[in-house]
Amino acid sequence: MERNQKEELRALQDTLYVIGGKWRLPIINSICNGNKRFREIERSIPGITTRMLSKELKDMEMNKLVKRTVYNDTPVLIEYEPTEYCRTFGTIILSMIDWGREHRKKIIEGDTF
Amino acid sequence: MERNQKEELRALQDTLYVIGGKWRLPIINSICNGNKRFREIERSIPGITTRMLSKELKDMEMNKLVKRTVYNDTPVLIEYEPTEYCRTFGTIILSMIDWGREHRKKIIEGDTF
Repeated sequence: MERNQKEELRALQDTLYVIGGKWRLPIINSICNGNKRFREIERSIPGITTRMLSKELKDMEMNKLVKRTVYNDTPVLIEYEPTEYCRTFGTIILSMIDWGREHRKKIIEGDTF
Repeated sequence: MERNQKEELRALQDTLYVIGGKWRLPIINSICNGNKRFREIERSIPGITTRMLSKELKDMEMNKLVKRTVYNDTPVLIEYEPTEYCRTFGTIILSMIDWGREHRKKIIEGDTF
């Protein structure tokens, strides 16, 4: 039991570490939903700053969460695509979306927890 | 589609907001696993400071994630228990534990994503 709890906690903390702050999962979700251009991703996430998105996309490219492709048109076109690794977050994101929905429903219904 | 994406993002962000930083879910997991006393919870989460756990438990009590009971023995005994609300994070925590396990397996196998 003790060992198992330690192993579970380690797995949980590994995941939390990769997910990082509040923007990583919304960006992953946006890109997995088909947004490819910087401005599209930015517009799809209200509240994110250009600077923060830029920083996150750089980190995510380094960590192989997104693939960045530069097309040498004029003007230059840059597209971001989700990697397979990026898509492994699907289950977590869906369980969080479900939780958020239930939470909102309960608040609207005025339930006390 | 557009509306749906907005609603999903809002639900995701609500959840991320409630989960907050890196300690909230490990603490929820520890208490749901049966750790009741401050020192038990503290010992179950390597790296957490006494100050941080204390702050988190206060916030979590205010937000009805944990129930704090004081038993007037000598010495005073204080126990933390998960509320029903706290247990609603189960699915998210399990999906994160799964992800962390898979991630570690892949790293050990030397897979590139």
